[in-house]
This record gives sequence, structure tokens and C-alpha cells, in this order.
Amino acid sequence: MTLDEKFMILDADNAPGQEVRKNTNDIESILQGEKLNGVLVDFSHGDVDAFPPAPGSDMAWNTGFERGASQAYTEYRGLADIRDVVAERLSLFTGHKVKADKELIITPGTQGALFMALGATVTVGTKVAVVEPDYFANRKLVTFFGGEVIPIPLEYKGILSDNGIDMTKLEKAFMDDTKVFVFSTPNNPTGLVYSPDDITKIAELAAKYKVTVIVDQLYSRMLYRDEVFTHFCSCDIKPENFITIMGPSKTESLSGFRLGVALGTSKLIDRMERLQAIVSLRASGYNQAALYTWFNEPSGWLKKRIAEHQVIRDCLLSIFGAANLQVATPQGGSYLFPQLPPLNVDLNTFVSLLRYQANVIVTPGTEFAPSCTNSIRLNFSQDIKAAISAANRIVKMTEMYRL
Amino acid sequence: MTLDEKFMILDADNAPGQEVRKNTNDIESILQGEKLNGVLVDFSHGDVDAFPPAPGSDMAWNTGFERGASQAYTEYRGLADIRDVVAERLSLFTGHKVKADKELIITPGTQGALFMALGATVTVGTKVAVVEPDYFANRKLVTFFGGEVIPIPLEYKGILSDNGIDMTKLEKAFMDDTKVFVFSTPNNPTGLVYSPDDITKIAELAAKYKVTVIVDQLYSRMLYRDEVFTHFCSCDIKPENFITIMGPSKTESLSGFRLGVALGTSKLIDRMERLQAIVSLRASGYNQAALYTWFNEPSGWLKKRIAEHQVIRDCLLSIFGAANLQVATPQGGSYLFPQLPPLNVDLNTFVSLLRYQANVIVTPGTEFAPSCTNSIRLNFSQDIKAAISAANRIVKMTEMYRL
Repeated sequence: MTLDEKFMILDADNAPGQEVRKNTNDIESILQGEKLNGVLVDFSHGDVDAFPPAPGSDMAWNTGFERGASQAYTEYRGLADIRDVVAERLSLFTGHKVKADKELIITPGTQGALFMALGATVTVGTKVAVVEPDYFANRKLVTFFGGEVIPIPLEYKGILSDNGIDMTKLEKAFMDDTKVFVFSTPNNPTGLVYSPDDITKIAELAAKYKVTVIVDQLYSRMLYRDEVFTHFCSCDIKPENFITIMGPSKTESLSGFRLGVALGTSKLIDRMERLQAIVSLRASGYNQAALYTWFNEPSGWLKKRIAEHQVIRDCLLSIFGAANLQVATPQGGSYLFPQLPPLNVDLNTFVSLLRYQANVIVTPGTEFAPSCTNSIRLNFSQDIKAAISAANRIVKMTEMYRL
Repeated sequence: MTLDEKFMILDADNAPGQEVRKNTNDIESILQGEKLNGVLVDFSHGDVDAFPPAPGSDMAWNTGFERGASQAYTEYRGLADIRDVVAERLSLFTGHKVKADKELIITPGTQGALFMALGATVTVGTKVAVVEPDYFANRKLVTFFGGEVIPIPLEYKGILSDNGIDMTKLEKAFMDDTKVFVFSTPNNPTGLVYSPDDITKIAELAAKYKVTVIVDQLYSRMLYRDEVFTHFCSCDIKPENFITIMGPSKTESLSGFRLGVALGTSKLIDRMERLQAIVSLRASGYNQAALYTWFNEPSGWLKKRIAEHQVIRDCLLSIFGAANLQVATPQGGSYLFPQLPPLNVDLNTFVSLLRYQANVIVTPGTEFAPSCTNSIRLNFSQDIKAAISAANRIVKMTEMYRL
């Protein structure tokens, strides 16, 4: 693969957060109808002004800065004292005992953890099972490291008991020399939480076929009422090699700190650290100190944050539902993945029009699976009034551009 | 190359900052002589307690945090307003007009910039000319991306006019299908500053043979009395494709913020951003705000900082000189690269002994070139008293272990 081809695949023009770089000069000529006024809502990521960083994170940073040299230059895998604290809290949270010294690494964001985890397990020719739809970087990362993507379809539009990945396809892929399986739960972009049965089954299949599993649980703290979360790492039967990825960027709104963690097989954590040594040395030292606040928020804080998100989720579901836009109810996380009606413009054009004409930024579904050409992703961690108004503008736009 | 082989090459056990992970259980058995007491000095990196972060950087961080969402989520290449400010200051500093929108990216440390720059230019089979000795990650990065290292020797022990890289070898490498040349000036680990003639010659050769040049100028602000620095990017004749890397981690002691920048050819900056999108999304948003202080330090601050380093440099040179340890006088940066006398233990053992017996941490020369088996690197950005005492302990240890 030439460098040009390699970077063609890494095209980030439609990636969340990059909308400002888009050229909208020619859009006037294809406009249908009036501009829809309203406060700009950027659904491509959460609004940390609406849901500010978890309390104390800035104070923790300042304490870290004051601590000086020992906080600025940590081991590449992160400051030992912070790993001790985080390992203990993650052991409690996941039900799986994490050894701070061997089985945990602090990374620049969960994106960094994902990059390092795939870099540690994928090389030229490695077959990697990737769920579709799933986080947009998964496919890009596999391709970047020279691996081959084996798509595993996810059913998310049906009734709950029918949803989930196609286990027959997964086992077939595992039998057919797949070495790595990467997936997110709660799923990004649909909010589907993998059932206990499915997680157990995945772990058993991976153990049987000696497949490395990388599970992205970035949103596992934001679970809606009565939902049950199963931690892959807590399964009794599981593969020798696995990595669980988490971080405080979403529920806790610490994205501006760029912090993530990976826990798992010591050999893989070692490799990830070696890779981190040439990628960025370490997660920013002072920022690491913010992890002292993680899983240690004030009593009731998490419950309130989830409840507030649940209200927004339900309002938007009701707006889209009333307009007959099909959308699954997310069980966790803060993404909605509504399906658009047939339109007289293509998906990327409609997304550009939404931004230009309706002051709403969303991410096209094709970032998450090539086949999702009629879906858009919204991160609804937003000011509730602004989000409701923007969702109504999206509905109006689908009516204006309906085929 | 299998993953095991790939990660063998990325072995970071002897990398600066990782000494704490070394097992020293067996060292007692090879100890010769007494323990040498003294305050621990970690020469593997600068001491940001001795030389604290540039004034205002923490206030800038707090202002960034207060700014909220717009500072937390920036474009992958960094916040536009900060790129505007930095581009203007770098244009002044380098004498090369940098376009903020197209030709500049903010990265997680200069390590991140280097990773992205080599990732944007090296793929399987790419021949890359790498100076020896030079920054330890250069060779590892080339190998990681599947490239082939073409070593270019650097003479740094002679008189000034004889020092520099072997231009004949460089041109031969360029003629022989080398696509990329990476080097640092001031050189890490020797402190050699490439002469104006050499920089001009490199730029002309690279233009002639269409070689991409990646120049790491991390230390270009810390120049000792009467030294002249030539910016590669300011050459009239230069290749179409080049990247200059800088950052505030060293002279300015902002390493705890993990900030770097790369300026250069728009096409390569684009690729670096695409890569950054899957590596870590962006340099930590709040941290980026510290760049407002960069090249904008209080009047006299830089001059004083350089003068203080020059005093330490000269003290250590004099200590090593009196003990007949050969060491080049660094023209810039804060590294010394002394040569040890023949010892009765190998280099890595001696480095372990220095840590265990003399409370001094240094980096083995072999991290910088396979052939530097009798050199050690010291970052002398330290408390001056502690550094002098530690240098004396190093001398004593070379006497105790002399062959």
C-alpha cells in the first residue's frame, strides 16, 4: 500500500469535530427552502459547558502541577501511585482484580488506548473482526496497521432480545483465522449494551479460538434505568489475551484532559507501553492527576448526571419518533443513531446542509459502517433546550429534503 | 515481521525515564567498592523543579479550562486561534513564513510530532537516512513503520570545523533511493549545532534528490554564547517536502503539558492530522492554552535560563575534563555525552550500578547509536549543586570500575 493510499483511508474530513475545516462555498446553489434559525448545536461531541468536567478535576490538575517534577515525568505507563488508585477502583467497578504494576496503562485519551491496543496486536495481514456499525476509528486503525477488516454485523433496530451481533458470523470469522476482535459496549453509535449472554459467549468463543479481544467500554458508567452491564474482563472463561479500554472523557466530561486507561493481559500492556514510548511518551503528566477524582466523584453526582442525560434522550426519542424517524433507544452512553427517510440529496450533502442551513452539526453514519448511508449520529450530551430545538430543526430538514 | 519481533525492536527498558522499572535484585553480587552517597540525580531528563515551567503556563491552563468547550474540543490539528499566534511567532523565530491554517499542527509533545511525521512519510520498504548518534526514537520509529534505516555517521568529537555528518555518505544514500532524512539540531545527545553550510548543503541535496527532510529542532532556543543556529526551513533552496519539529518541553520546561508543533509542507501536515485523528485525536485541549506563553516569556527570562545552563554545562565539562573523560562541548541544548574509559563491566551494567551504587541515573549511549557502547547521556538541566556532586560520583565510579 502506498502512503497516498494509506492516508486516503484515513480521510478525516467527515470525522466528528472536523466540520469547521469543511468548505461550504458551493452549498448556496443546492439550498432548498429557508434557513432555520437557532443556537448552533454541535452533536458531533458532548458539550462540556452543558455538562462540565467532574468536580475537582481542575483542582487535581493544579495540585499535580504544584507537585512538580514527579508529576511531569511519569513512567510511560503512568504514575505508579495513580495506577495503584485507579487499579483498585477499576477492580471494584469491573469485578476483575487489576494488578496496578503489570496490567494497567494510562494513555492519551481512550483514542490513545485504542491505537496502542490495536498497534500491539495487529500487523500486516492480521485478520481483525470489526463490528458494523461501531466506533469510526476501529476500521481505520486496522487498515493503518496493515490488518484485514472482517465485518461482523450488529442488529440494533429490532426488539431488545433480537439485538446483538451475529454470533454465527463471529464464530465463522474466528474459525477462519481471525486473530483479534474489537468492539464497543455500550456500542458507539447506537447505545446498545451487549447482553450478559452475548458477552459470555464472545469470551468463550475467543478463548476457544485463541482470539485477542479488545473491548471499548468508554461509556460503561452511563447506563440508563434498569440496564445491566457485563464486564468482559469479569467473565470466568475468557481468552488469555484481552484489553479493556475505559476513560473519563465522556460521562465525566474530562475529554479536555486526554486521559484513557487500558487494563488487561500483562504482555499486551507491556507492548502498549513500548508503543507509547515512541508515540507520545506518556499521557500528559499533570493531566494524569485528574484521575484521582475518577470513580471518586461526590455522592449522587453520577446518578444525577445519568438522570439528566436520560431526560434529554427521552425528549429526542420522542421528537424523532413523532416524525417517524426510526431510532433505537440507547441503553447506555449519550449517542442517538436515527435513520433518515429517503432524501433527494446524499448523506454527506445533507450533513453539510444541516450545518449550513439549520446550525446543527451531526456525524454521517458512514463513519461507523459503510452501509449506514441513511443514518446520522448525535451526541446528546448537550444543553437540553438547545438539543430539543436542534432535533426539531433536523426533523424539519428531513421534511424539506424528503425525496 | 511478527509482532514479537516488532516489539523486541521497541524495547524501552533502557529508555530515559523507565529506570524505575528495572529489576536490581542481582546487582549486589557484582558491586565493587562502597556505595557513594548523595542526592539522587536523574540525568535521564531535565529537572523541572530546578528549572520550573515558563512563567504563566499554569495560569494559561486555568484560563483554558475556564474557557470550557471551545478549548476542550479543538480541531485535531489544534485550536485555530492558538495556531495563528504560534505561526506568527515561529515565522519570526525561523525566518520562514508559516501559514497557520495549512502548515502547522499542534501535537502531544514533540515525540508525537516525530511519530506523526515519520508515520506520514515512511511505509514498508521506505529507506530513511538516520544520523548516528541521534535521538533514540528515530531508529525505532523507522523500523516500526516498516522502513529501512540507512545510518549516517555524525562526527562530534573533533574540532568544530571537522564536526558534522558525512555529506558524501548522505549524498550516496540519497542517490541510492533514500526517501526520507531525519535529524536533530542541536543534536541529541551531543549538543552539536549543524553549521549554516551543512544545513544549506543538506537542503540542496534533499531538493536535488527529492528527499523529504524531518528536522527536530526541539532545542533550538537554547543556544550557548556566540553560537549561530540555522533554520532548515529558512533555506532558499530546499525540498518540496519537509517538516520542522519544535516544542516547549525542554528550554521552557513544559514537558508535563505534552505539547509539540510541526510546521512544513501542507500535504504532510494534512497526513499528520489524519494520523493524529486515530492516534490521540488532539493534544490535550486545555494544555494547548499553555502555548499562548510560548515565545512570549517575560523579558530576560530566556537569556537568564540559558546563562544558568551554561554555568552547569561548564562545571560538568570541567569535572569530566579533569578526569580525562572525553566529552564534546555542547553548542546548544542541555545534553552532555561523555565517553567512559574502558570498564570491567558492560555499559548497561555500569548504568545500573550508577543508579544503585551512586544514586545517579543516566541513559546508555547505545540508545542513540548501536556503536556508542562507551558513552552515557546526561541531561544537565538540574539543580547545579546536585549535578556537580553527581558528576563527581560518576567520575569516581569510572575509577572504581576501570579495566
